[in-house]
Amino acid sequence: MSHHYIPDEWKIIEDNFDPADNRASESIFSLGNGKMGQRGNFEEDFSGDTLQGHYLAGIYYPDKTKVGWWKNGYPEYFAKILNAPNWIGIHVQAEGIPLDLAKIPVTNFRRILDMKKGILERSFIAHFPGDKKIKITTTRFLSMADDETGAVKYTLHPLNKPVTLKLTPYLDADVQNEESNYGEKFWEEEKQSITDGTGIILVKTKKLNFRVSTGITCLFEVNGKRTVPATEWKVQPKYIEKEYTVRAGKGDTVTVYKYAAILSSLYYDPKELIRSTRRKLKEAENAGYDHMLTSHCRAWDALWQEKDFMIGGDLPAQQGIRFNIFQLHQTYTGKDERLNIGPKGFTGEKYGGSTYWDTEAFAFPFYLYSGRREIARNLLLYRYRHLPKAIENAKKLGFTGGAALYPMVTMNGEECHNEWEITFEEIHRNGAIAYAIYKYTGYTGRYDYLFDYGLEVLIALSRFWSQRVNFSVPKQKYVILGVTGPNEYENNVNNNWYTNYIARWTLLYTMESIEEIKQTAPEKWKTLKQKIHFSEEEPVRWKKITENIYFPEDREKGIFLQQEGYLDKEQLTIDQIDPSNLPLNQHWSWDRILRSCFIKQADVLQGLYFFEDHFDPDTLERNFTFYEPRTVHESSLSPCVHSILASRTGNPEKAYTLYLRTSRLDLDDYNKEVAEGLHITSMAGTWLALVEGFAGLKIRNRNLYLAPSIPSHWDFYKFQIRFHNHTFIFLINHKEITVDHYGDSGLTIYIYQQEYMVPPKEKIRVPVK
Amino acid sequence: MSHHYIPDEWKIIEDNFDPADNRASESIFSLGNGKMGQRGNFEEDFSGDTLQGHYLAGIYYPDKTKVGWWKNGYPEYFAKILNAPNWIGIHVQAEGIPLDLAKIPVTNFRRILDMKKGILERSFIAHFPGDKKIKITTTRFLSMADDETGAVKYTLHPLNKPVTLKLTPYLDADVQNEESNYGEKFWEEEKQSITDGTGIILVKTKKLNFRVSTGITCLFEVNGKRTVPATEWKVQPKYIEKEYTVRAGKGDTVTVYKYAAILSSLYYDPKELIRSTRRKLKEAENAGYDHMLTSHCRAWDALWQEKDFMIGGDLPAQQGIRFNIFQLHQTYTGKDERLNIGPKGFTGEKYGGSTYWDTEAFAFPFYLYSGRREIARNLLLYRYRHLPKAIENAKKLGFTGGAALYPMVTMNGEECHNEWEITFEEIHRNGAIAYAIYKYTGYTGRYDYLFDYGLEVLIALSRFWSQRVNFSVPKQKYVILGVTGPNEYENNVNNNWYTNYIARWTLLYTMESIEEIKQTAPEKWKTLKQKIHFSEEEPVRWKKITENIYFPEDREKGIFLQQEGYLDKEQLTIDQIDPSNLPLNQHWSWDRILRSCFIKQADVLQGLYFFEDHFDPDTLERNFTFYEPRTVHESSLSPCVHSILASRTGNPEKAYTLYLRTSRLDLDDYNKEVAEGLHITSMAGTWLALVEGFAGLKIRNRNLYLAPSIPSHWDFYKFQIRFHNHTFIFLINHKEITVDHYGDSGLTIYIYQQEYMVPPKEKIRVPVK
Repeated sequence: MSHHYIPDEWKIIEDNFDPADNRASESIFSLGNGKMGQRGNFEEDFSGDTLQGHYLAGIYYPDKTKVGWWKNGYPEYFAKILNAPNWIGIHVQAEGIPLDLAKIPVTNFRRILDMKKGILERSFIAHFPGDKKIKITTTRFLSMADDETGAVKYTLHPLNKPVTLKLTPYLDADVQNEESNYGEKFWEEEKQSITDGTGIILVKTKKLNFRVSTGITCLFEVNGKRTVPATEWKVQPKYIEKEYTVRAGKGDTVTVYKYAAILSSLYYDPKELIRSTRRKLKEAENAGYDHMLTSHCRAWDALWQEKDFMIGGDLPAQQGIRFNIFQLHQTYTGKDERLNIGPKGFTGEKYGGSTYWDTEAFAFPFYLYSGRREIARNLLLYRYRHLPKAIENAKKLGFTGGAALYPMVTMNGEECHNEWEITFEEIHRNGAIAYAIYKYTGYTGRYDYLFDYGLEVLIALSRFWSQRVNFSVPKQKYVILGVTGPNEYENNVNNNWYTNYIARWTLLYTMESIEEIKQTAPEKWKTLKQKIHFSEEEPVRWKKITENIYFPEDREKGIFLQQEGYLDKEQLTIDQIDPSNLPLNQHWSWDRILRSCFIKQADVLQGLYFFEDHFDPDTLERNFTFYEPRTVHESSLSPCVHSILASRTGNPEKAYTLYLRTSRLDLDDYNKEVAEGLHITSMAGTWLALVEGFAGLKIRNRNLYLAPSIPSHWDFYKFQIRFHNHTFIFLINHKEITVDHYGDSGLTIYIYQQEYMVPPKEKIRVPVK
Repeated sequence: MSHHYIPDEWKIIEDNFDPADNRASESIFSLGNGKMGQRGNFEEDFSGDTLQGHYLAGIYYPDKTKVGWWKNGYPEYFAKILNAPNWIGIHVQAEGIPLDLAKIPVTNFRRILDMKKGILERSFIAHFPGDKKIKITTTRFLSMADDETGAVKYTLHPLNKPVTLKLTPYLDADVQNEESNYGEKFWEEEKQSITDGTGIILVKTKKLNFRVSTGITCLFEVNGKRTVPATEWKVQPKYIEKEYTVRAGKGDTVTVYKYAAILSSLYYDPKELIRSTRRKLKEAENAGYDHMLTSHCRAWDALWQEKDFMIGGDLPAQQGIRFNIFQLHQTYTGKDERLNIGPKGFTGEKYGGSTYWDTEAFAFPFYLYSGRREIARNLLLYRYRHLPKAIENAKKLGFTGGAALYPMVTMNGEECHNEWEITFEEIHRNGAIAYAIYKYTGYTGRYDYLFDYGLEVLIALSRFWSQRVNFSVPKQKYVILGVTGPNEYENNVNNNWYTNYIARWTLLYTMESIEEIKQTAPEKWKTLKQKIHFSEEEPVRWKKITENIYFPEDREKGIFLQQEGYLDKEQLTIDQIDPSNLPLNQHWSWDRILRSCFIKQADVLQGLYFFEDHFDPDTLERNFTFYEPRTVHESSLSPCVHSILASRTGNPEKAYTLYLRTSRLDLDDYNKEVAEGLHITSMAGTWLALVEGFAGLKIRNRNLYLAPSIPSHWDFYKFQIRFHNHTFIFLINHKEITVDHYGDSGLTIYIYQQEYMVPPKEKIRVPVK
């Protein structure tokens, strides 16, 4: 795999522009600040292949679903994050000829994503007809300090001849989703407001009436001196622009500053939107570009202090993990419990920006370990707030009594997906939601979330499992029929081991939590019991189920079976098929994939990853050895789990190979799909492969365990995590592990199963095994 | 179930017009002649709910499929029979007010489908404002004598006051399919030709360039005297009309005759179409309406001589079976091997008029027993001609070496359906195609079709099964994984008993046929072997498979299991659930249906029906007793199979109940869906329930067996079948069976297992058991 981007510790650098690669680069160079994001589009016009994308967290549209054959229970809508007004655009003309990088030759092209500062920079020399060379430099950022603002600095510099330049910065709200099911436009204009140098467009979405106010101000400088264009704003429906024409001599510098403020009815009274937008714009303008940029960089700096993962001696790996961390924090900053993490974040429209089980299974532990407790808590609250809709969803499918089935894909708690084998059957998603509550409770060491919110969710989930199992007379066991496990290359199977296991575990954990609340917070329990009409009979059945649920396994091979009958399939390993068949999803018909034994993503192994401490190391190893050669990792969420298990089962080389596959998945575009957007949620898996895999971090019985290994060609790696109220920085090299402790009190941690008391504000050193 | 239509031996009579029922009545009153068909639309305008439908056999359009989530292997198109030019329409105005039965009050309404004559008649009194009453009488038919022509006679008769009438007969080619996936129109106009009193529009379909030329001539009479309208044809794009205004006094009779000719490029050189259409029209006009009608009625009369099924003493049953036979023959007359039988014939657009396994499993034996050998042979040839596309289809899914998978839904041999669990998995359809060849060979007693065509198909099917099975190491058996059986309320199951059984049987029958051809036609075999690159190794594997294929069963219960693990489901019978849940497909979510044990249509029992003589009567009965209470019959193809098995297992009452459910399914609209069209293919099942069920007809070892019973309240029943070159008329009453034989030589038949030699052209009588 060749590296298209120049390896660099802190930067993604592209120094070779090919219009054919542009859509992919636009994904890579995406910017975001948690509240909004945008693809790395050019400010000027581009007639080549591009997905112009601006997105605002939490602003979506319920698009009419497209379905071939309707099934009872399907949702009517598929929520989609909206392609939002474009505020970066500047039409540029030199001698009347548009600057369009698909048409005008450019040299010295350089596009840089500075991850340390959160800035997108670009410079190039455009060669206009008549040998007129203009150097262009742009800088853009979405402020991390004030997440409702952004700015562009766009500079033109005629290199050899005088040129008449026409610059037309604009604001375009007449945008639409590329993945709109029926080509519909979702925005309606409510108002334009042009006052005091600012231009603002207030738009409203159809159906849900989200309002978004986007404003810009544009300042022009020639050779550093402010200048005023002759024209005022020109307006069209959903569109405004300002035009500035200047005759620039050789060596002159013409600069446009665009400040933008983007405010929505998620955070403002709709009546206040325009006024607040104008105030923000004036503040930005008054503070000035440099000041705004400084605040923004300072905010990123603070983030990196907490979240950086340093790797010594492996530049591609260093760049890869920083890119992952950077994009994760651009996507989600955890300030608003109504927001979540779409699989592609703000970098593309695929998957509609909706929430999947990716959040709980992969993204959640990253935010939990690396961030502040409130961020992880907000992710949990997101699901708690959706509980009534999850109960409604289960009801629609025939479940009763407060049973909840969380949606497979959602924005606001309603199911959006419509493939029966996924929507109705990939019910293991309920398990990951329970598991995140468990993880949070163990990690924080506190019961408040569990008792105030989590338990209510757990009981609703247990009610679901309790009804979803049935008793098989031939087996004399409880069974779960007709499910799709994490491996979506099997559909509608019976007794998927992972699903059965996490169902049983959920029931057990719920019962355990009920005992805990009864003991320690009986008043809270009393209130909850009444609220949810809980009957003491319920856990009686739950207990029976947990004691007698069926698990498919092969005793001879000593493995758990992905599902009943898995071994009836023709058993092959990937090395037995011609590589030209890979990826299977591009070369095989769907039924051939289904019939084959090949596994899209970790399934039994996902369960062994979650519940590692329930099994002895030999069991882990036997299952890993059996399933890894059958797993094609055609989901981005798969290699990280396998990498972690490879680390845990003493396969460091395998762990490193699998880690590489995930860490630079997008930068090196392994699956030739980065044009669609980045794999945001799997980026969290990459981090987990390092921290839980290489460093061997785990929480057991509310204690912190570490068992680091280090790839042979690395010099060191270093990362910070928070645990309870303690901050630890771990530095691992080939000699020793240095644990730097920033807590107020001492804490016992376990390294290679050995107990170490780490005093407050001190370091300890432990030799690497 | 109340009878909306008046019971009558030969007629369907509606004497009460409710605009809300119109769409349903339009289905019931459909006309057809095998080459074309139309719904029972009104000639005059109707602004209420209506599906205006004219369809031409074999003229279709590959519409772009609509699919939510694409799967590799899906077809890009879904062929749809086209809504064709409307030639029946007449705009009628009285004093400038349009005659529109959704707006103008009518009395004395009567709509009659005369099944004996194949005529649709209608009469009513329209009450125009100003108390102007006009009696209107219409007659329409699609000629069975010349199946490219049709005619309308439309008569107006002012009853009490003089009225100015404006009559505008028209031809409208600007029509579109209601079920067009993207609202597209499929016809393009090529030419209009207005000459010599005829108006013709030649249209062409997009993509496939089918050409259809539709022409009309219109004659006007007042009180029986030909009159000529002042205006000539008015033309618009894809539309022509003629206008005639007359002042009619009380008691006058104004009549419009419309003759139509509909010719297509299926049968004519496109360049000749317009000229041929004009010639047909002039012939019709010259012969005159009455003459044309007489020829038509004579053709129907000849059909009924062969195909009538008489029931004495049960008017609704008599009407029901005649309606079924009538509609079947309107749909398919067997003259063209390129045509087939859509589940809704020409009566609606659902299922796109395409071919399903319904044809081989249900319709084929009806045409085989009741008709001429060539008709059934053409149905077989239809599939033979599609063999190369079935091989291509299998190849697309990963099969090799000339294996064939026939499409689930097709028009021209290409797969049209796109639900993976059906398209890729409901592979038992291959079995019914083999079974039809077997049935034809046994029935005709001749090998010519088998050797010339059938065997080539059988080998391609066996090649498919041979690759589709795999060897299960745990079971030490061949298994067929990931299928959908006839019961579509289970998807993606393993080892569906029916599928495994018919797969094994196909292999055995293919091997047996190969032995037969080797013995009796070695030259033909040599040619075929070379053509299809047959290797003698192939049957070696086939034999191994047939000897060791897995069949799920429950030995204790003595039943075959619909699929592996069926008994793991919660076992309920229909009487244990509240009837408000029925039909399940309208009340339960899809996953709940899938998880339940309830069966949509005969599955194991379909196999026991096909292969009854492989099993002892106790086995049949145990399986029937087990599965019938679990079967909800939510496919129209189900009750007939159960009815036959009820007859065979000595449950005459159950047989009658199930028969009733199918016989008047559409007339009494049991499933509230007749508005979508009639259940044409299941109508054949109704006939089978009588002939194979009540009369106990079967062919075994090329002999004819009968074992009649008669429902207690019937006086008699009588029907004709052909067997080899013999025609038999069976008359069964409570005393005896009379066998009337029209063959040229004697034949031995078996009644209640007893041998009877029936001499040529004689009758025998056998007491009823």
